[in-house]
Amino acid sequence: MPKIVDHEERKKRIAEAMWRVILDKGMEGATVRNIAEEAGLSLGALRHYFQNQNDLLVYAMTLVLERANSRIESVMKRDIPPKEKVIAVLLEIVPVNAETLAEMGVWFAFTAYVKHRKDIPNVPEDGIFEGTQKFIGYLHATGLLKEGLDLELEIERLYAFIDGIAMHALLDPQRLDSERVIKTIEYHINSICVE
Amino acid sequence: MPKIVDHEERKKRIAEAMWRVILDKGMEGATVRNIAEEAGLSLGALRHYFQNQNDLLVYAMTLVLERANSRIESVMKRDIPPKEKVIAVLLEIVPVNAETLAEMGVWFAFTAYVKHRKDIPNVPEDGIFEGTQKFIGYLHATGLLKEGLDLELEIERLYAFIDGIAMHALLDPQRLDSERVIKTIEYHINSICVE
Repeated sequence: MPKIVDHEERKKRIAEAMWRVILDKGMEGATVRNIAEEAGLSLGALRHYFQNQNDLLVYAMTLVLERANSRIESVMKRDIPPKEKVIAVLLEIVPVNAETLAEMGVWFAFTAYVKHRKDIPNVPEDGIFEGTQKFIGYLHATGLLKEGLDLELEIERLYAFIDGIAMHALLDPQRLDSERVIKTIEYHINSICVE
Repeated sequence: MPKIVDHEERKKRIAEAMWRVILDKGMEGATVRNIAEEAGLSLGALRHYFQNQNDLLVYAMTLVLERANSRIESVMKRDIPPKEKVIAVLLEIVPVNAETLAEMGVWFAFTAYVKHRKDIPNVPEDGIFEGTQKFIGYLHATGLLKEGLDLELEIERLYAFIDGIAMHALLDPQRLDSERVIKTIEYHINSICVE
């Protein structure tokens, strides 16, 4: 079914064009017209794939999540010790290279935008809270967590820490370079794990 | 000098009108026209106080910081033990009531907006990183920090944690209510302090 493949490929290309426009001009600049131009398509051709800007927005957000989730799934399959695995997964969420910095940049812009738009149906959630629950549960199940920790509050703390450092890596990359991001994440995970 | 007072009061009222417009409509809706309408002024009258939208934006951002800083200064003057003081200050930054939730809402919108606007001069910084350095330094100087901590990484971790939980309190207030925010902040500070 080559036609279906083309259709999906084209939709992805349009979503990626939307990402680039957002990174360059912010959400204010992410008009259907600008996105069509960036994708090298006519307005009519773009409307063939996405009926309105909300459809495109939700698709582009979902694509960010799919890419991140697919990287996380590969890490989960790697044969490395549990603590290293959790750290490696966190480093697929927190931006430490150009690709994940770009993802975080569009995600941050999306989040600030949809906060004020109650009219957009099916806005996807990033799932980081549920992920954090799994990571803490996994460290606990493998006997790596220190004694006496409050698991609920460790989840809340890790969730806040991860999203906060991701935002800082995005907004202040000069000060907080990837080496420092990695050191801080390792430091936090080591602080809650037995030696 | 009643005239100067009126001038400053009027500027504050306009900035507060901008906050309300942002909270209701997002940065996309924060046009000079909408802000003038919300403030009950003509466009001409608004332009008497702010020559352009950037001037107003920077003023409105600065006013958010001034309010937060003035609350923090009052807390610093209170006669309470150092650990309680640090926690109380953090609870002036992280939103735990309607006033601080509104501040965080406009600040988050500002931050996402100015990220893509290299043309706005004198964008103020929130100073939370410098604050975090002071809080960790203060806990260290008063002998409250546990032995063997890495101060640089504790600053980075607290900074990420505080900004992350502030963002979550803003974006997900149903799940993360103020009681849970307070418990998590106390938990983190207790985890780095001696009993």
